[in-house]
Amino acid sequence: MGKRVKIGIVGLGRLGKHHAENLAWHTKDAALVAACSLVQEELDWAHDILGINALYQSYEEMLDNEKLDAVWIASSSAQHQKQIVQALDHGLHVFSEKPMGVNVAECKIIERATQLHPESKFMIGFVRRFDPSYVYAKELVERGVIGTPFLVRSQTVDMDTYAAFQVKFVPSSGGIFLDMNIHDIDLARWYLEDEVASVYAIGGSYVHPEFETVNDADNTAALLKFKKGSMAILSVSRTAFHGHDTHTEITGSKGILKIGHTPSKNRVEILDVDGVRTECVKDFYERFSEAFLAEAQDFVDCIVSNKQPRMTAQDGTKATEVGFAMTQSFGSGTIISL
Amino acid sequence: MGKRVKIGIVGLGRLGKHHAENLAWHTKDAALVAACSLVQEELDWAHDILGINALYQSYEEMLDNEKLDAVWIASSSAQHQKQIVQALDHGLHVFSEKPMGVNVAECKIIERATQLHPESKFMIGFVRRFDPSYVYAKELVERGVIGTPFLVRSQTVDMDTYAAFQVKFVPSSGGIFLDMNIHDIDLARWYLEDEVASVYAIGGSYVHPEFETVNDADNTAALLKFKKGSMAILSVSRTAFHGHDTHTEITGSKGILKIGHTPSKNRVEILDVDGVRTECVKDFYERFSEAFLAEAQDFVDCIVSNKQPRMTAQDGTKATEVGFAMTQSFGSGTIISL
Amino acid sequence: MGKRVKIGIVGLGRLGKHHAENLAWHTKDAALVAACSLVQEELDWAHDILGINALYQSYEEMLDNEKLDAVWIASSSAQHQKQIVQALDHGLHVFSEKPMGVNVAECKIIERATQLHPESKFMIGFVRRFDPSYVYAKELVERGVIGTPFLVRSQTVDMDTYAAFQVKFVPSSGGIFLDMNIHDIDLARWYLEDEVASVYAIGGSYVHPEFETVNDADNTAALLKFKKGSMAILSVSRTAFHGHDTHTEITGSKGILKIGHTPSKNRVEILDVDGVRTECVKDFYERFSEAFLAEAQDFVDCIVSNKQPRMTAQDGTKATEVGFAMTQSFGSGTIISL
Amino acid sequence: MGKRVKIGIVGLGRLGKHHAENLAWHTKDAALVAACSLVQEELDWAHDILGINALYQSYEEMLDNEKLDAVWIASSSAQHQKQIVQALDHGLHVFSEKPMGVNVAECKIIERATQLHPESKFMIGFVRRFDPSYVYAKELVERGVIGTPFLVRSQTVDMDTYAAFQVKFVPSSGGIFLDMNIHDIDLARWYLEDEVASVYAIGGSYVHPEFETVNDADNTAALLKFKKGSMAILSVSRTAFHGHDTHTEITGSKGILKIGHTPSKNRVEILDVDGVRTECVKDFYERFSEAFLAEAQDFVDCIVSNKQPRMTAQDGTKATEVGFAMTQSFGSGTIISL
Repeated sequence: MGKRVKIGIVGLGRLGKHHAENLAWHTKDAALVAACSLVQEELDWAHDILGINALYQSYEEMLDNEKLDAVWIASSSAQHQKQIVQALDHGLHVFSEKPMGVNVAECKIIERATQLHPESKFMIGFVRRFDPSYVYAKELVERGVIGTPFLVRSQTVDMDTYAAFQVKFVPSSGGIFLDMNIHDIDLARWYLEDEVASVYAIGGSYVHPEFETVNDADNTAALLKFKKGSMAILSVSRTAFHGHDTHTEITGSKGILKIGHTPSKNRVEILDVDGVRTECVKDFYERFSEAFLAEAQDFVDCIVSNKQPRMTAQDGTKATEVGFAMTQSFGSGTIISL
Repeated sequence: MGKRVKIGIVGLGRLGKHHAENLAWHTKDAALVAACSLVQEELDWAHDILGINALYQSYEEMLDNEKLDAVWIASSSAQHQKQIVQALDHGLHVFSEKPMGVNVAECKIIERATQLHPESKFMIGFVRRFDPSYVYAKELVERGVIGTPFLVRSQTVDMDTYAAFQVKFVPSSGGIFLDMNIHDIDLARWYLEDEVASVYAIGGSYVHPEFETVNDADNTAALLKFKKGSMAILSVSRTAFHGHDTHTEITGSKGILKIGHTPSKNRVEILDVDGVRTECVKDFYERFSEAFLAEAQDFVDCIVSNKQPRMTAQDGTKATEVGFAMTQSFGSGTIISL
Repeated sequence: MGKRVKIGIVGLGRLGKHHAENLAWHTKDAALVAACSLVQEELDWAHDILGINALYQSYEEMLDNEKLDAVWIASSSAQHQKQIVQALDHGLHVFSEKPMGVNVAECKIIERATQLHPESKFMIGFVRRFDPSYVYAKELVERGVIGTPFLVRSQTVDMDTYAAFQVKFVPSSGGIFLDMNIHDIDLARWYLEDEVASVYAIGGSYVHPEFETVNDADNTAALLKFKKGSMAILSVSRTAFHGHDTHTEITGSKGILKIGHTPSKNRVEILDVDGVRTECVKDFYERFSEAFLAEAQDFVDCIVSNKQPRMTAQDGTKATEVGFAMTQSFGSGTIISL
Repeated sequence: MGKRVKIGIVGLGRLGKHHAENLAWHTKDAALVAACSLVQEELDWAHDILGINALYQSYEEMLDNEKLDAVWIASSSAQHQKQIVQALDHGLHVFSEKPMGVNVAECKIIERATQLHPESKFMIGFVRRFDPSYVYAKELVERGVIGTPFLVRSQTVDMDTYAAFQVKFVPSSGGIFLDMNIHDIDLARWYLEDEVASVYAIGGSYVHPEFETVNDADNTAALLKFKKGSMAILSVSRTAFHGHDTHTEITGSKGILKIGHTPSKNRVEILDVDGVRTECVKDFYERFSEAFLAEAQDFVDCIVSNKQPRMTAQDGTKATEVGFAMTQSFGSGTIISL
C-alpha cells in the first residue's frame, strides 16, 4: 500500500467534503493524508469522519510539514491562483476546482507556473469532462457517428431554491457567465475543437430582481461564433423548479447527440394523477456524483501512470477569457470579439 | 356526390355519436343519411347537429324505408347479433361495434350469415387494428424487423374514474375479460398469427370490492399458450390514475416492438416542482380517436373499392371464445384448454 | 347541406393538394366547389379525385364566375398579396398560406385591405397555432401553470433530403429566416405576448456550401430581445437526418413547457441491435397533418359562427418584419433594432 | 485505519473480480486482505492488481490462517452452502452471492446456521435491493405514493450474445427460473410483503432449440398468486438484442411505479438516420454496477454499525422455493401450490 498517492486537501466546504470522501474512501491508489481549512468544525469532521490526523489551518504549513505527492484545492476562488502556484513550486501535483483564477491575468500566471513544472500534473476541475455520458458523447464524435460537429447548444440550469444564496455569491463568483456557463464554454471548445471568435449575450432578472441590483441576471442566453466557423448557443437559468437541468446538444453534419435531456433522478417513473413523471436531480452534486469520482480517479491515475490530464491550464484560461467576454457583452449590449 | 356510400347508424350513445360525427363530417365518400335510436334526445341531436332527416326508433323500419348501402351498428351488445343478420339479409354492408355477439353461439350465427352474403362487406370494430401505431407495428413485423414474433404482452387499462359505472355494466358486458381483454386477444392473434390453445387467468378486486360481488375483478392477469407454441401475457386494470394506458409489446426472434407505452396526451412535457411529466389520454375515445376515423374510412373504402376488410366474422368468434375461456379460468382457478 | 361554406382553392402543389383533400373530405360544413391552377395536371387531379367541376386557370375568372363564400390561397408566394386583396375586394373570406407577402410593404397593403373589409374573415396559415400540442401549451400558459413566460426557444429543422431542392427555392422563399423561422417568430410572439425589439443572427453553410453562394445558410441561430424584456432563442437547420424536428420550449417563472421534443412518428418503439429507438416524422406535412385539418376546420368555423380567427393580418406583418431583420443581421453581422 | 473490516474473498471469476475491486478500492471501512481461488491466474491477478499477499487455494486454510472479520463468497453455486456454514462456524460475517444453495434443503441448513450464529451478519446477494432506483421505489411505496401495492410485473432479460454460454450453464445454474427469475421473485416478495401461494409457468425455446434439449427454455412467463391475494407476472428472456433489459413495475391502489424501463446505457441520445435512439446496458454488471458497490458498502456498514442486513437467509430460502415451484410448473404444465 506504500504506492498510494499521498494527497492533502485544502477547503472542506460542501464541495470540498464531497471530494474528500471520494479521495478517502472510493479512489483507487489514493490516500488522503492531510487536510487544511480555516474552519475548525471542518477539521474536526476530517478527523472524526475521515480519520485524518494531519490537520492544518495554514496551507503553507501543510505544504512544508507533510510529505505530500499532491494537493487537492477546493478552497474559495480567490485563493486558487496563489495556492496552485505554491504547490507547483513545492514540486507537487495539483488539482484545482474551477475557476482556475478570478481573472485572465491570474490564469496566465498559472499557465506559466505549469510550464515551469512540466513534471507536475495539473488538472482543472471541469468535471463534466468526466461524466460518463459526456465522455461517451466525445467517443461517439471521435468515431464519426455525427460527422463533423458545427453547433453546440449547452445550458446550465440550477434550481430556484439556491437563488437567494447565489445573489450573495455574485461578487466573488464573477457572475452568472463565469460561475455557470464556464462549463458550457469548456464543453463547446472540447466538442467543436475550435476557439471562440466573438460573443453576444443577453438576459434578465425575471424571477429575482435582486440579481439586477448586482449587475447580474437570473436567466441568460448567448451566441458564440468560433474561429473556424462553428457556433454555440449557451444559456443559463438560476430559476428552475424541476431540478438541476444541465444538458448539451452537439449537432454535426451527419447527426446530433443529446446529453442529459430530462435530468432524471434515477430509473423510476411515477404514474399517478399527475400523469407519467420522472423526478429530477436536485443539484450538480447529485447530477455529477459519478463524474466527481471519475475526476478524482483520473487525477490519481495520471500521477500513477505518468500520463497527461485531458485538459490543461490553457483550457482554464481560454474558458475564463470567454466568460469575461460574455459578461462584458451582457453589460454593454454589444457583440464582443476576442 | 351521388357515389357516396349511404349509411344508416343505429345507436347514438357516447360511442355512437363519435362514430356518427366521423361518418357525417370526416369520412371521404360517406354519407350518413339515417339514424336509429330508442332515445328521442339522441335523434334530436342527429337532426340538429348532423342535419339528418331520416330518423327512426325502429331498426326494421329504417332498413325497410331507406335505400341504404350500409348500416353502422353501435347499439347495445344484446342487439348486435340480430341487427347484423337483419342487415345482411337486406343485402347491406355491415359494421358492428364489438362484441360481435354476447356468446359464442351468437358469433357462429353471424359467421354463417356473412358466408351466406359474401357480396356484403362485414367489419367488426376491433378498432386497435386501425390505430396508426398498431398498423405500423404490423408493417414492421411483416418487414421482418423483429424476426419471428413469439410473445405478445398486451394490456387494457382504464381510469379508476369509470370503475363505479363499470360495476353496473358487468352483467351486460360479459365481465372484464370479454369487455376489455377482447382487444388484446385479437391483437395477440393478429401479430402471432396463431390460435389460442389454453388460458390461465387470475385477478382480484383490489380497489373496488364491489366487482367481487358480481364475480368480476378490477385487475387481472392471464397467460395464453398458442397452438404453434407462442405465448401471450394479457392484463387488465380498471383502476389507473394516470390515464387510459392501453399498450402492447411484441417480442420476436430479432427484436421487440413496444406500442403505446406512456400514453401521452400530446407532445407537451411539463417541467415543474413535480419533475418532468407528460399528461396522459383519459379514455379510449381520446387514445383511439384517429383509429375510429381510420376504421370508418376503411369500411367505406372497402365498399367503394370492393376489397375485403382486414378482419372477418371469424376473428370475432375466435376472440369471443378465448374471452369466455379466460372468464372460466378466472372463476374456476384452473387452466382451460380450447 | 345548403349551409356549407363554398370554397375555391388556388394553388394545387403538394401543400395545396393536402389542403384541398382536407376541405373536400374531412372538414365539417365545408364544400370545396372550385379549383384554380396554372397546371392542367393539377386541375385534372381536382376533377378526377375530388370530383370538382368548376376548374380555372384564371384566378380572376374563378372569383367572377363562382358564387364563393371563401378562397383558400395556396399559390406561389409572389401571388399571395394580389390574390388576397382581390378576394377581399370581392367580399370573400380569405385563408392564405404563409408568407402573407414577400416583403413588409405587401403585408401592410394586406393589413389595410382587411381593415377595409371587416366583414371578411382573414386567416394567415401559421399552422402551428392549430397543432393540438401547441394549442394545449397555450392553454397551460393561460392557466398559469408555468407562471409568467419570459423565454421561448424554438427551432425549425428539416431533413437533409430536401436541402438540394431548398437551394433553388431560396430566391423566392426569402431565405432561411423568412421561410423557416417565420413560424418560430410567430410562436414566440404568441406565447410571450411581446414584440421584438432587436435581433442578432448567425449561421453558416456547414453541410451544403451552395447555400452560401446564394447568401443563405443551412444552419442558423438567433437571439431576440423583446420590448418588455423577454427573450427568444430561434434556430433553424436544413440538414437533419433523423426527421423533421420542429420543437419549442417556453420558460416561465414557475416552470417550463416542452412541445414536440423527440418528433416521434407514432407510438411505436423499436428495440433491436441499435438499442431503443423511435422513428421520426419526415416532414412538416406529417408532423402537422392534424394541425392542417384543425386550421381548415377553424377557418370554416369562424365563418359559420362569425367569430374572429385567432391571428390577424397584423401578426403576418410583424413576423415578416422580424424575419427581414434577422436576414439583415445575418448578412451584416450586426445587431438589428426594430 | 485499524478499524477496517478485514475480508477474505473466495471465487475470482468475472463477478468475483468485480466484487474484489469494489472491496479493495471503493468501499469505505473495508480491507480486502485475503483471496482464495482454485485458479492460479486468478490468484496472480489478486496479487498483482489488488496487491493482496494472503493467497489460498484452500478455503479452509484461509479461514484457519487469516484473522478475518468476514468472508465474501463468489465461488461456484455448488460450494455456497458448505462455505457459508464453515465461515459462520468460524464466527465470521458472511456475504454470499446467490443462489444461497442449490436446493431448498441446502437453504434450510444455512438458515439454521445463521440462527446458531446471531452475532454474525449474513447477507445474500440479491443485488437489485441495493440498486438506487429499486431502493427509491421501495421508499416511494413506503411513503404511500402508490397506495397499497397488489401487482408486481418484473422481468430479467439477457442479451442473446450470452445464450450459447448459458446453455452449458443450465445444469449447474438450476435453469432459467432459478438462475434468472430468482431476483424477480425476491423483488415481488419485497414490494408486496406477501408470500407466494401458487405458480404457473410457461415458455419455450424460440430462438435456441438447444435449451429444450436440457429441459430449459429461452423465454418464459409466469403468474404467481400470493397468500394475501396479490399477484405477480414474471418473465425471462435470454434472447434480447437491444441490451440487458431488467425492469419492474409495481401497481398499487393509487398509482404505479416503473423501474428501469428502457435500460439506457447513459444519458446520451443519438439522432441519426435511424431516428432517435438510446443505447442500452449490455449486461447485469453494467446495469447494476452501482448496486454491487452499494451492496458491498452496506455489508461492511452492517458489520461496523452492528445493524441487520435488509434481507435474511429466510429470504434466500423463500425465493429458492418459488423458483423450484416455477421450474416444476414449467415441466409439468400444471399449477403448483406452495
